[in-house]
Amino acid sequence: MPKIVDHDERRELIVDATWRLIQRGGFDRATMREIAEEAGFAHGALARYFPDKQSLISAAFVRAYSATNARLDEALAGVTGLAGLREMCRQILPFGASSRPYARVVVAFWEQAMQNDDLSQLHRSNNMRWRGLMWTFLEQARSEGELDDGVEIGAVVDEVAAMNAGWQVMSLLMPETAIDERITAALDQFLDRIRA
Amino acid sequence: MPKIVDHDERRELIVDATWRLIQRGGFDRATMREIAEEAGFAHGALARYFPDKQSLISAAFVRAYSATNARLDEALAGVTGLAGLREMCRQILPFGASSRPYARVVVAFWEQAMQNDDLSQLHRSNNMRWRGLMWTFLEQARSEGELDDGVEIGAVVDEVAAMNAGWQVMSLLMPETAIDERITAALDQFLDRIRA
Repeated sequence: MPKIVDHDERRELIVDATWRLIQRGGFDRATMREIAEEAGFAHGALARYFPDKQSLISAAFVRAYSATNARLDEALAGVTGLAGLREMCRQILPFGASSRPYARVVVAFWEQAMQNDDLSQLHRSNNMRWRGLMWTFLEQARSEGELDDGVEIGAVVDEVAAMNAGWQVMSLLMPETAIDERITAALDQFLDRIRA
Repeated sequence: MPKIVDHDERRELIVDATWRLIQRGGFDRATMREIAEEAGFAHGALARYFPDKQSLISAAFVRAYSATNARLDEALAGVTGLAGLREMCRQILPFGASSRPYARVVVAFWEQAMQNDDLSQLHRSNNMRWRGLMWTFLEQARSEGELDDGVEIGAVVDEVAAMNAGWQVMSLLMPETAIDERITAALDQFLDRIRA
């Protein structure tokens, strides 16, 4: 009788190992053989699921943004306008020490994506989804009279997208500036200023 | 008679090669031997100037921020308050296609710095200098009555630092959003909102 193998579980174990290597700063230098070892697999077994390092960093990023998107689906149910935009930013911004591993994976992914069109496309599709959500909330805010007349929605979407990305970097490289209170203060001041 | 060697020039040639490798996406995977080859040096000659890849990425980043700081010194002479903050952001933000190589070096550096305390310290000292400049401009703006009373300077410094970092990422991964007109629109809307 052939051994029953749970392929999804194996893939998850390999992505776990990739996350651990990114956290320790060892992913760049690791060979596929070393990654297989970290995951507890033979090299051949790893290659069956992930043929190269690009596919591993891609899977690591998909796990990161899927987790965020699952939180967003739950947190954004029933909220609209500026409250929706605020809640969305609260889910994406690097609050708490538990967000550091996520930020590390995201920055490692960006660095690879700037060198690779497929990874860049993966980033883009998630980013466009988030930008679409921001637009929706800002349009709602406008139609509900919440938004200052001078606010140009496109410019605010760019600004929020840039801020959310920048705080990820700050949480890793300037962690003393990225404490929860300061992120909240910057977010709320920003929202107060676009409010009617 | 011993051969006269211009050590500074040699260092510059090696940093040139490091920049080229980062632009092509080959720095991560390159060995010290390959980097020496790219620079046109023997491996031993490279190691005399830069003992490891960390020292190379560090030198690549120092070149990037030194160039920005030289531009800042010139551009900020005589400007104060919000005009100073605006000019500072204009020098740091990724305007024009010529800023892409800079952004690539910076993102590659961040990814290494999140794994390495010395590199992180280098980032911090430059970032603290920029934050100090932002504080100065915002304090001037406040004392000249340019700043809205509700603005908390610390939160604005965090916000500008996050935005400036985030736009670097966007210029590489979402270049269609990071065209000059949109960066300017986001910057100017932001400045209009903190203005009294």
